[in-house]
Amino acid sequence: MPRKGLIDIQSGPSPHDIPINQVGVSQVRYPVIVFDKNGGTQHTVSTVSMYVDLPRDFRGTHMSRFIEILNKYRNGISTRNLGNIMREMKEHLSASRSFFDIEFPFFLHKHAPVSKSESLMEYICSIHGDSEMPFFTLCVNVPVLSVCPCSKQISEYGAHNQRSTITIRVQSEKIVWIEDIIALAESSASSDLYALLKREDEKFVTERSYENPCFVEDIVRNCAEKLFKIESISGFSVESTNMESIHNHAAYAKILHNFRS
Amino acid sequence: MPRKGLIDIQSGPSPHDIPINQVGVSQVRYPVIVFDKNGGTQHTVSTVSMYVDLPRDFRGTHMSRFIEILNKYRNGISTRNLGNIMREMKEHLSASRSFFDIEFPFFLHKHAPVSKSESLMEYICSIHGDSEMPFFTLCVNVPVLSVCPCSKQISEYGAHNQRSTITIRVQSEKIVWIEDIIALAESSASSDLYALLKREDEKFVTERSYENPCFVEDIVRNCAEKLFKIESISGFSVESTNMESIHNHAAYAKILHNFRS
Amino acid sequence: MPRKGLIDIQSGPSPHDIPINQVGVSQVRYPVIVFDKNGGTQHTVSTVSMYVDLPRDFRGTHMSRFIEILNKYRNGISTRNLGNIMREMKEHLSASRSFFDIEFPFFLHKHAPVSKSESLMEYICSIHGDSEMPFFTLCVNVPVLSVCPCSKQISEYGAHNQRSTITIRVQSEKIVWIEDIIALAESSASSDLYALLKREDEKFVTERSYENPCFVEDIVRNCAEKLFKIESISGFSVESTNMESIHNHAAYAKILHNFRS
Amino acid sequence: MPRKGLIDIQSGPSPHDIPINQVGVSQVRYPVIVFDKNGGTQHTVSTVSMYVDLPRDFRGTHMSRFIEILNKYRNGISTRNLGNIMREMKEHLSASRSFFDIEFPFFLHKHAPVSKSESLMEYICSIHGDSEMPFFTLCVNVPVLSVCPCSKQISEYGAHNQRSTITIRVQSEKIVWIEDIIALAESSASSDLYALLKREDEKFVTERSYENPCFVEDIVRNCAEKLFKIESISGFSVESTNMESIHNHAAYAKILHNFRS
Repeated sequence: MPRKGLIDIQSGPSPHDIPINQVGVSQVRYPVIVFDKNGGTQHTVSTVSMYVDLPRDFRGTHMSRFIEILNKYRNGISTRNLGNIMREMKEHLSASRSFFDIEFPFFLHKHAPVSKSESLMEYICSIHGDSEMPFFTLCVNVPVLSVCPCSKQISEYGAHNQRSTITIRVQSEKIVWIEDIIALAESSASSDLYALLKREDEKFVTERSYENPCFVEDIVRNCAEKLFKIESISGFSVESTNMESIHNHAAYAKILHNFRS
Repeated sequence: MPRKGLIDIQSGPSPHDIPINQVGVSQVRYPVIVFDKNGGTQHTVSTVSMYVDLPRDFRGTHMSRFIEILNKYRNGISTRNLGNIMREMKEHLSASRSFFDIEFPFFLHKHAPVSKSESLMEYICSIHGDSEMPFFTLCVNVPVLSVCPCSKQISEYGAHNQRSTITIRVQSEKIVWIEDIIALAESSASSDLYALLKREDEKFVTERSYENPCFVEDIVRNCAEKLFKIESISGFSVESTNMESIHNHAAYAKILHNFRS
Repeated sequence: MPRKGLIDIQSGPSPHDIPINQVGVSQVRYPVIVFDKNGGTQHTVSTVSMYVDLPRDFRGTHMSRFIEILNKYRNGISTRNLGNIMREMKEHLSASRSFFDIEFPFFLHKHAPVSKSESLMEYICSIHGDSEMPFFTLCVNVPVLSVCPCSKQISEYGAHNQRSTITIRVQSEKIVWIEDIIALAESSASSDLYALLKREDEKFVTERSYENPCFVEDIVRNCAEKLFKIESISGFSVESTNMESIHNHAAYAKILHNFRS
Repeated sequence: MPRKGLIDIQSGPSPHDIPINQVGVSQVRYPVIVFDKNGGTQHTVSTVSMYVDLPRDFRGTHMSRFIEILNKYRNGISTRNLGNIMREMKEHLSASRSFFDIEFPFFLHKHAPVSKSESLMEYICSIHGDSEMPFFTLCVNVPVLSVCPCSKQISEYGAHNQRSTITIRVQSEKIVWIEDIIALAESSASSDLYALLKREDEKFVTERSYENPCFVEDIVRNCAEKLFKIESISGFSVESTNMESIHNHAAYAKILHNFRS
């Protein structure tokens, strides 16, 4: 007879007859290595969620196994082994479906447009996997500058402008590089941002953005137009949130195309 | 010829041939009046998003009109006039579809279980409307207490327990009262919470919850079982997030039933 | 002999010989009524912290008494009875010092500068009381628009601008109206913000702000200059955080004057 | 005559006669390398603020120089070169005082108490430097488990417990290791936390914590008692926030000792 302390009541029968779509751990913080497009890697820190489905006849899943799987990959959780992690989740948790979400800051070296001064920009990214889908969903958040075309048009001088965040989600069975999505988004607004701008750069960015005003609607359409041309992308969602500098709220727009949520 | 300052370039043609799914304002903060089940009202503060669709041949929407509509109802934005607001959005913005999201804290007077001491509990709620759907989606977040059945079973004494948040979303063409969803959720965990407990209440809550341990899986199944019985609810989603007291992450479970997102 | 369940171990001796500076409840959510300068009131929702000191010879305080005091005032917690609440905290908790912090959104009706269209603006405020001090500390956060003077100066056209948040804390033994601090801050940046601007207002705000560029340093100095002139204010702190539209970080400045923290 | 674009108006005279206490950049995100007590390093991601004072006769500081200094150390910003960074800030910005704040997640390998299973725990840390002070202030946030002594005492069985966060700030002219502060905090509550616990570990943690109940007051006193014994620490602040599992708010306590803020 087992000791009181070792009965596995999670594996016992469920008093309900209801299957659970997703059960697991969330808000797990873990270091992660992300592969760059140029063949290098970067060390960053992630927030992870891991779920499986649970049939109607089991009372509970085994929460510690999720962390055991994560721990096994702790010296190299990367965008390359998410597929393996999701397969192990199904196996070790006797599940028919597994879900994996990971969010992390990604850094890019950028050069200021005139002085070429180098600095780092942060982009919050996430990857979502669902074992029932043939693709991963990559999400990239790109802060940009937007100058209001209406304000420019109606004013004798000046134009209100602000920081905007473009959020692009792409679904593809092939590798999509974070760097490519960032470049696509940064070329779809009035200007991209930099951590370090010297005076000559500030002049350049101010003038370039004034010459290139765009509404929140223009930003998402500019992005969508480019995303349509990437054949390997089966579906996408593109959003922009403009932190209006003349209001205390945001302007927002979203385009969906064959996006499966 | 119009003055430079008054040209309406938003109404001009779009250089793209791409329709936009949602465009409008987000993160708008506004006072709101919410109707209680018992016929009263409560004043609270909300965060609002208002979007419409935009056809391929218009460059932009008119952002100020969203706020004008909101402003018209400012002495009484309530769960009762969301339908009217959404109709006005379609009319005044020449759109074929409108979306309205409103989130607000809702307070309930509760009596402690033994001393009957009265206090207020806060529940974060939101209502989501989509003019294409015949229903509103009501979302209610309910903090509860969960005692771990495994920890109780395997330990000589004690059992780890923690605050959990149950998030229920229901879709219905009829009125669903926030109070009823709260009651449903609070009876589905080890115990409900109170802002004010005297010593005799604390004893009662501790013992009741120890007698009634539940996994995160049990919580969502307990809720789902009750939601299935409410005929007017066409679809629902129920989630629970347990802020594990023995870990630095959360345990999570989710059941979906005919839920349209 | 008392039942096991009713022993008051908080009042028992402390195994340590260490006094505690602050002990109590935090993150308490409660509706609150705030008095307007014009004699009216507004209903809003607050987050409250209530602490007392605890001498070295007591093991614990009585947490439920904080909520009981708050509950007593639940139909009218206001800036007018904070002094009474703090006196009751000392009495009912046998403490020599009490602290009370309350944070809430405050709304102001504003008229757009040209069209006079009315809308509501939100300002996050807080009040901090310490029974050892003869004053309350009022904190008001005011979102404004800042146009960069350097960008304007060096560029052929345009100038980067962005939303900034001015945070003013004032200490006074007399009543200081939130509305007066808001007006002081809004007149210290390139322009104030509005929830609703028609096209003629947008032109006005764009041009006014371009004519009135200011660095983050100018903003805090403009505020400080005005605060120095208010005799009833014994000390203040003024900060500005500019959410730079050309960078992904903020510019920040702070001036302190006889401020007691 | 300088081109319009290159005038340095920041260096021009200030229209006010008011010195600024702190001016610079905040919310800068940057990768950072942190040195471990055992001689190793870990790569993590930080949020940085850098400020200097500004005399009454200068209109503005030079924001880009802060990022240039940060950038110079980008392959090795560490707790070891903060002093150098602060000296360079004073030099390159012609300031008499500099401030540096850096916050980052720090990870520790932990072994479960019985099974010895290994996992990673995250602790949010920050370091604050002020060139006028002979010390750095190290802040470490440590999540722990707290079992309520009152609930245990008055109840026939069980005891409510919850996750608490201990926040310790120490000021010292010598090196204080993050690992030592974590150990000090984790031994001051009912139990420490783990990312991975097998069934035998869960039994151990449940029973150990039930045997070792502690109020929020006990936690801060337990920490303070240990901090008093570390001679190199000149001042400290210790706080605990218990996310009460029977309430929807937190219990809080704080002890200050010779802490300079």
